[in-house]
Amino acid sequence: MEPRTLRTVTTAQATAVLDAAQKKAEDMGIQQNVAVVDAGANLLAFRRMDGAWLGSIDVAITKAKTARYFDMPTGSLGEMSQPGGSLYAIEHSNGGLISFPGGLPLMDGDAVIGAVGVSGSTVDDDHAVAQAGADALSS
Amino acid sequence: MEPRTLRTVTTAQATAVLDAAQKKAEDMGIQQNVAVVDAGANLLAFRRMDGAWLGSIDVAITKAKTARYFDMPTGSLGEMSQPGGSLYAIEHSNGGLISFPGGLPLMDGDAVIGAVGVSGSTVDDDHAVAQAGADALSS
Amino acid sequence: MEPRTLRTVTTAQATAVLDAAQKKAEDMGIQQNVAVVDAGANLLAFRRMDGAWLGSIDVAITKAKTARYFDMPTGSLGEMSQPGGSLYAIEHSNGGLISFPGGLPLMDGDAVIGAVGVSGSTVDDDHAVAQAGADALSS
Amino acid sequence: MEPRTLRTVTTAQATAVLDAAQKKAEDMGIQQNVAVVDAGANLLAFRRMDGAWLGSIDVAITKAKTARYFDMPTGSLGEMSQPGGSLYAIEHSNGGLISFPGGLPLMDGDAVIGAVGVSGSTVDDDHAVAQAGADALSS
Repeated sequence: MEPRTLRTVTTAQATAVLDAAQKKAEDMGIQQNVAVVDAGANLLAFRRMDGAWLGSIDVAITKAKTARYFDMPTGSLGEMSQPGGSLYAIEHSNGGLISFPGGLPLMDGDAVIGAVGVSGSTVDDDHAVAQAGADALSS
Repeated sequence: MEPRTLRTVTTAQATAVLDAAQKKAEDMGIQQNVAVVDAGANLLAFRRMDGAWLGSIDVAITKAKTARYFDMPTGSLGEMSQPGGSLYAIEHSNGGLISFPGGLPLMDGDAVIGAVGVSGSTVDDDHAVAQAGADALSS
Repeated sequence: MEPRTLRTVTTAQATAVLDAAQKKAEDMGIQQNVAVVDAGANLLAFRRMDGAWLGSIDVAITKAKTARYFDMPTGSLGEMSQPGGSLYAIEHSNGGLISFPGGLPLMDGDAVIGAVGVSGSTVDDDHAVAQAGADALSS
Repeated sequence: MEPRTLRTVTTAQATAVLDAAQKKAEDMGIQQNVAVVDAGANLLAFRRMDGAWLGSIDVAITKAKTARYFDMPTGSLGEMSQPGGSLYAIEHSNGGLISFPGGLPLMDGDAVIGAVGVSGSTVDDDHAVAQAGADALSS
């Protein structure tokens, strides 16, 4: 029997994600918290911009973990977890999940190699900054 | 005064449940996490299939516990825990419960001897795999 | 920039580890809890033998996590964490660590691909059963 | 009555600390986790080098918090927290403290403006990398 191989985001890639997300936030005139987890959902990098909400430290990190835990954008989880939905109250699991936008898987082809999570503004802003971060890996 | 007797699922039975659930998941082309707890709601066995969602580790274990905590399928709990329902917000108890399908009691006649919990796909898929696992004990 | 590659233990390998550990425990006439985590330190497999201590469920899982968190046998951590030692009180971190024997990294050549943790008897017994589990991957 | 003013480390300073620490670690041939907290002891920045111990994520962050919580190097706390010492078992407070070397306050003149925490190697190595990080602010 042989082990299997996983691809995981590197420190250099994570720093590029943080830099791209920060640039996007600066262009938008907002202050954000940005977190990156690796393929094992373990924290790899984090940055809080000056003046960003303190409560968004944990939210950003949790968004990144949530996105890797379920290999989907955090907002997609929330579409299923509302009252009456198929995954109602899933946020109680895993020490707490975040199910609104701002978390995105990081991709290498079809493989999820980690995830980025952003928090500090409206969820639409959070999502835009996360997307800019994720796009850094396609460049 | 005498103590009372509990029937509880054995390690051999739990392994048969995991094997049957895994086979069902493979036939369905999905990757699942499967957990079994005993009559005391204590973890007895767990298996994560290659590539299954990391967030579903905790969800599967919690589904198994929830099913034994209340001697019912987890989805049945969810029918009562929606806003306005009789058990609204019960998910806050016991360190977190899961109230959507995928957890089922394991039966020996009328006695609940433990429970199985499955997570990693849609809740309908999770339920089907859990049922296949539970059915292993009727064979 | 490219992602990096990690090797991680498979479900099939983890089951082989559990089976080998259980066989060793049976030969020794003891009941054990055995856990396997993957390269991301996420739970991959768990089995409690009939009659094994309930408190050892969490200890076994924590031993596996600890061994992968620090890429060393759990007893080696304990040699450094005693009063006066360089890592005194490290057990307070990571939600709780176990620093006595019974946890071992799982190796593929020089790479740590996960870890096994065993608990349920004396720590010497735990270590012997964990070693038998780990040896299953060298066969 | 007027509020008082705190000086706190900026995101740019924190990034410089991470960069200096990473360079030192690379020169030493070791892989480290590095965390920076601000004057409020809130996480400001974090970076895990490729291959660094997973258990050291939490240890590095906790070292940074501990150093700011008590405005001293973490090893100094440990000198007082051994059995028989004046602060025995203080590690139980604050959700867990780390009291061995690797955490250092970040200074601006006499003011503590935050702290850096490093973990991933021997505590002497951790301390050297933390010192290199802290020194980045004197440059």
